Amino acid sequence: MNATLSYAAFDRTSPFGPFSFVRRDPGALDVQFEILFCGVCHSDLHTARGEWPGTVYPCVPGHEIVGRVTKVGPEVKGFKVGDLAAVGCMVDSCKTCASCQAGFEQYCDNNDITFTYNSVDKHLPGKRTYGGYSSQIVVDERFCLHVPENLDLAAVAPLLCAGITTYSPLKHWGAGHGKKVGVVGLGGLGHMGVKLSHAFGAHTVLFTTSPGKAEDGLRLGADEVVISKDAAAMKKHTASFDMILNTVAASHNLDAYTSLLKRDGTLVLVGMPEHSHPSPDVGNLLHKRRAIAGSMIGGIAETQEMLNFCSQHNIASDIELIPIQKIDEAYERMLKGDVKYRFVIDMASLKA
Amino acid sequence: MNATLSYAAFDRTSPFGPFSFVRRDPGALDVQFEILFCGVCHSDLHTARGEWPGTVYPCVPGHEIVGRVTKVGPEVKGFKVGDLAAVGCMVDSCKTCASCQAGFEQYCDNNDITFTYNSVDKHLPGKRTYGGYSSQIVVDERFCLHVPENLDLAAVAPLLCAGITTYSPLKHWGAGHGKKVGVVGLGGLGHMGVKLSHAFGAHTVLFTTSPGKAEDGLRLGADEVVISKDAAAMKKHTASFDMILNTVAASHNLDAYTSLLKRDGTLVLVGMPEHSHPSPDVGNLLHKRRAIAGSMIGGIAETQEMLNFCSQHNIASDIELIPIQKIDEAYERMLKGDVKYRFVIDMASLKA
Repeated sequence: MNATLSYAAFDRTSPFGPFSFVRRDPGALDVQFEILFCGVCHSDLHTARGEWPGTVYPCVPGHEIVGRVTKVGPEVKGFKVGDLAAVGCMVDSCKTCASCQAGFEQYCDNNDITFTYNSVDKHLPGKRTYGGYSSQIVVDERFCLHVPENLDLAAVAPLLCAGITTYSPLKHWGAGHGKKVGVVGLGGLGHMGVKLSHAFGAHTVLFTTSPGKAEDGLRLGADEVVISKDAAAMKKHTASFDMILNTVAASHNLDAYTSLLKRDGTLVLVGMPEHSHPSPDVGNLLHKRRAIAGSMIGGIAETQEMLNFCSQHNIASDIELIPIQKIDEAYERMLKGDVKYRFVIDMASLKA
Repeated sequence: MNATLSYAAFDRTSPFGPFSFVRRDPGALDVQFEILFCGVCHSDLHTARGEWPGTVYPCVPGHEIVGRVTKVGPEVKGFKVGDLAAVGCMVDSCKTCASCQAGFEQYCDNNDITFTYNSVDKHLPGKRTYGGYSSQIVVDERFCLHVPENLDLAAVAPLLCAGITTYSPLKHWGAGHGKKVGVVGLGGLGHMGVKLSHAFGAHTVLFTTSPGKAEDGLRLGADEVVISKDAAAMKKHTASFDMILNTVAASHNLDAYTSLLKRDGTLVLVGMPEHSHPSPDVGNLLHKRRAIAGSMIGGIAETQEMLNFCSQHNIASDIELIPIQKIDEAYERMLKGDVKYRFVIDMASLKA
């Protein structure tokens, strides 16, 4: 018996409430850790409220998880009791395909990814995986990350999704010195994109619809802030970007950004829109060999690389700490964009 | 006086008819050549019939031009009288920007490209450029290509647009041994895409809506032919392509092809749809870091490289030779897809 306290959504519309369940006992290769903090991602909300297909209730969201190791299996080599540990969006994958072998578990060729919540639990027949809005987790060592000791632990939690989701494409498309990188949107992902692009050494331009966010954008590391509703300001940047990282999931006109890419530039989408974006103009792509690409979180090794990079550059998320009892309120505020820039749950509140 | 015979469109709807005009006398850096053959591109039809904005009449289309040099300016170094010569889609660009300097004239940073027809003529104030449905042309040596002697000259003409438009993206996205490349559509561009992809050594798969084209696809070099309306046949290729070259300009569902790309694969569009494609599914891009990109013709140096490659591999276009007097009929047949695979005008017919 491995009793676990949590907060769960019981249906699409009711408030979250306490939920007790049993996690598997740690196997030979498993790490068990007490969850100290868990970030609140927009995916949590979509899943909890059944806005994406396939939610099974009760649903315990949370995939930005940090804590301290309480037990390790006999064959675990990289962790010991008392270590800091973290889990992101995945707790397992096929581990055998070319993509998994190459460290791209998120693009598993067999589409056999076990997500941290609301996935079929391979270990507990008939059960779904339960995420980080809970007191503890048991995870295969290969999907467990080491957390740098020099960062504020609560502020590290959002790195496990918002951090890696922006780090991976910035790295892949070569953000760095001499490059001009745009980041669209200053939310949970966007604020990490700005910090990371700046740390990579790229000339970083934040695009936001909100003039009120300009000052914060500069504080977070943007070299320039462009109010995307200002057509003249946008036009000044025509054909000048190497890449633009678009963190906005809401349906919007992508042409406004593809036209800002220089030859061979890429607009990278990391948000999944509920309603399709207007169809992008093909001429805009043809005329400068531009591309629109997608990117999804990052692999496990790359997530560790990102955590180490953040440690070296002293980067973590800007957060607002909440008790688990305020999760419904936090969701409502997220919908209004009223968070700077990530809610993180203090899991000590579970025992309150 | 440099009198030139041609066939021109005089308005959107009337048939083509004879038109005489004056080209500039060759300057110090110009090559003048007699046009022997000119390919018929779908762009000619769009422009002649005013289906794209900006057609100025009379309009003399034609940008797949081959012939024999009749005169060269005193500073021309690369051509002499009697040489074979060719002109493609461009006759000038700014020549000074980073893209032009790097051999990407087609992506000129100053958007200062003089297209072969219906562009402002920098040499003749108030005039538009006139294309290859004409007896001769005068062109800056830097935009003039050398034609290999070993190929059928009439069949070389389409290489200047259909050839380079497919060669450039195949080269850029790494078509070659060990790669799986799709080509969508078996028209003027598609049939060159199949030939070139095969010559690059890629495993080449033709996608066509027409079962009747399967045999021809294999003859042209495809390793496999997939009837794109056959969902089961399409599904077999899920997540297996390194790149797919999409030559179909008509609005269609791109998701059917993005889903066939492996991780980091690219769907390259080379056709400009009159009506937007349905908005591509973002999830399809996110889940394997796939991209949709555009590509437009190719640079001048690359066009020469393509001609040399075709010479080495004994590749030219499959054509149907017509006299200029049948150009209207040829357009009607193009609209019905009734051409294997490119009409080429025998310009000797101009004197008939």
